[in-house]
Amino acid sequence: MLIVKKFGGTSVADKDRIYNVAQRCIEDYREGHDVVVVLSAMGDTTDDLISLAKTINPEPKKRELDMLMTTGEQVSVALMAMAMDAMHVPAVSLNAFQVKMNSTSRYGNARFKSIDTKRIRHELDSRKIVIVTGFQGVNKYEDITTLGRGGSDTTAVALAAVLHADKCEIYTDVDGVYTADPRVVKDARKLDAITYDEMLELATLGAKVLHNRSVEMAKKYGVELVVRSSLNRSEGTIIKEKVKMEKMLITGVAADKNTARISVIGVEDKPGIAFRIFNTLAANNINVDIILQSVGREGTKDISFTVAEDELKRALEVLEEYKEALTIQDITYNAKVAKISVVGAGMMSNPGVAAKMFESLYNSRININMISTSEIRITVLIDEKDIEEAMNAVHEGFALALVE
Amino acid sequence: MLIVKKFGGTSVADKDRIYNVAQRCIEDYREGHDVVVVLSAMGDTTDDLISLAKTINPEPKKRELDMLMTTGEQVSVALMAMAMDAMHVPAVSLNAFQVKMNSTSRYGNARFKSIDTKRIRHELDSRKIVIVTGFQGVNKYEDITTLGRGGSDTTAVALAAVLHADKCEIYTDVDGVYTADPRVVKDARKLDAITYDEMLELATLGAKVLHNRSVEMAKKYGVELVVRSSLNRSEGTIIKEKVKMEKMLITGVAADKNTARISVIGVEDKPGIAFRIFNTLAANNINVDIILQSVGREGTKDISFTVAEDELKRALEVLEEYKEALTIQDITYNAKVAKISVVGAGMMSNPGVAAKMFESLYNSRININMISTSEIRITVLIDEKDIEEAMNAVHEGFALALVE
Repeated sequence: MLIVKKFGGTSVADKDRIYNVAQRCIEDYREGHDVVVVLSAMGDTTDDLISLAKTINPEPKKRELDMLMTTGEQVSVALMAMAMDAMHVPAVSLNAFQVKMNSTSRYGNARFKSIDTKRIRHELDSRKIVIVTGFQGVNKYEDITTLGRGGSDTTAVALAAVLHADKCEIYTDVDGVYTADPRVVKDARKLDAITYDEMLELATLGAKVLHNRSVEMAKKYGVELVVRSSLNRSEGTIIKEKVKMEKMLITGVAADKNTARISVIGVEDKPGIAFRIFNTLAANNINVDIILQSVGREGTKDISFTVAEDELKRALEVLEEYKEALTIQDITYNAKVAKISVVGAGMMSNPGVAAKMFESLYNSRININMISTSEIRITVLIDEKDIEEAMNAVHEGFALALVE
Repeated sequence: MLIVKKFGGTSVADKDRIYNVAQRCIEDYREGHDVVVVLSAMGDTTDDLISLAKTINPEPKKRELDMLMTTGEQVSVALMAMAMDAMHVPAVSLNAFQVKMNSTSRYGNARFKSIDTKRIRHELDSRKIVIVTGFQGVNKYEDITTLGRGGSDTTAVALAAVLHADKCEIYTDVDGVYTADPRVVKDARKLDAITYDEMLELATLGAKVLHNRSVEMAKKYGVELVVRSSLNRSEGTIIKEKVKMEKMLITGVAADKNTARISVIGVEDKPGIAFRIFNTLAANNINVDIILQSVGREGTKDISFTVAEDELKRALEVLEEYKEALTIQDITYNAKVAKISVVGAGMMSNPGVAAKMFESLYNSRININMISTSEIRITVLIDEKDIEEAMNAVHEGFALALVE
């Protein structure tokens, strides 16, 4: 069996943890499996390097920032190979140049284009554990790129895809994917399995276990993922195309506080105005999420929408700049809002899900500001202060904790 | 003009020093020159990485140690490019993969085999300052290697050679090459120029300004070197094939305390015995320096020789192991010895140099233990305690301080 195992920065933050990771990889190796390990930079290394860069130049060029940051993973992989060597297991570390992890040109946010498997195959064939730097690629100029947030997960999934790995294990500091954040909902239950689509909805909504891009790539190439803890032996959560329904409508409840509502008041009720508003925001790289349009006074319209809270300031600036052209009379906003979502492939064939969710929130006297739905997700916007109560209410409403 | 400039770890140890180096490079660039900069890792980074490695594995594989250590120069070059960018000068950092600095396979002590100039030329043609990682290469397995001690100097000379640079400046924390160590001999004078051969003799003897390999390479490819300070504007010392004689017999006086004398007593006076002794030491990677053979008691011979002090223990172990086979009756040693040498191309045509040296030492009542000579060097072994007095006596004897 060929297993790709990815460990994040906290899992390799010090000597003991490096040895812990080495041990887990060696167990698979000793059972006769081929093992490819993908590592992030140790602990806070990446942040430290960015801080160092900013002391030299407050706005470093992304090309040079990538050149700098990628040293972090190279340190991790070299140390891991040394640890395995100390444990008498042949291992070899490889960086993006050595593997030939070809990426698009865009520094700081590159995508993989192709990965050469020859070197890795050669090392596996000579029965070595292969340890690869996560997060990094090489573009057509032969410059180092980084993949942006969640990049090491993407590296692991990409390697699993091109190597046709039997398993791709993503190790984190949680046991797996939960029906809700266990720090908020104490009855939250670990899921044995979840579909790619459900995971994508959860990841987008801030479940933070896996980055979207890695799940999208896993879905595209049919790579079966396992999310599990590097700190214990729990089985984790499998993420795949189809999951046996466990009589559950809903897979999980997710919250996202990084959201803000903006309302543009009294815009002309003419065709194309809404389009121009959202087009202007998009042209400024501001992603709009939930949209609600309502009739305003004297034949005008009010349009409300949500943006990520950290993009609120820029969104307001853009709207202010184009206020007149967009026929906006007034702009209001509220950063103290949050999204709560229920996700589940089961809701496609069950029309009562939305009603159930609204009922749970109503019973807890929680006000709903806006609503957005997809085939397998219902999201509502509520006041930020209500978020914990809302999560528990919804979780309980769907009895997520009870179904086994 | 194409100028290669190399700065060591202390020259890039912090933000201010990085900016100082950037400034000096930019001055040449603004005069219209093409500038290639070679950097070492910042400050103690390399030592820190080695210490980190040893906490993971006391005897790390050299391949992985090279993988680890080479991140140090990559950090330096990326930060330097950021500094130059902040000063509004286009710059690009390149590592050994990007330049294609092909080396032999030997990790920790590789040699350059070929260097591709295409990428550097391309960047210079678009009027960028090119900043290259020193100390590292890539071998035929596409693995990272390091060049061993003085590696960054070698990188600079190698780049100057393949790029046919007009100048190769090696920046250090001293003003240039002196007639003697100025910390010991207060009248020591900075040399304006010195030949490759003289520099090689001085480097071997512990002058520590430049590593031998870089001087050998410069001689082989006719690269004119300049050793100068990164801290001031002093002109430094030029190292080239031929230097105008300044009515000086001697270019410099050098001392080396890292030496120990071993005597093997009472070996059989048979052909081949001496050969077998030195062959045995060579097979164990122990370099022998000065050799003195004398007649011992009862038809036996005594053989004395010097080794580097840090190889003394191992040399004694080897001799002890083969004592019987080598017909050695007794082994004595003395680590409290030092070598003092005078170097100068002028002595080839002046027979009085040795006599002058011995006279200077005799006048100071310094005892000579052993003598070794080359065409342009005379070395004597003395007691370590006498070294400072000896250096001053010899320096004065040849009036090195007075000749201008």
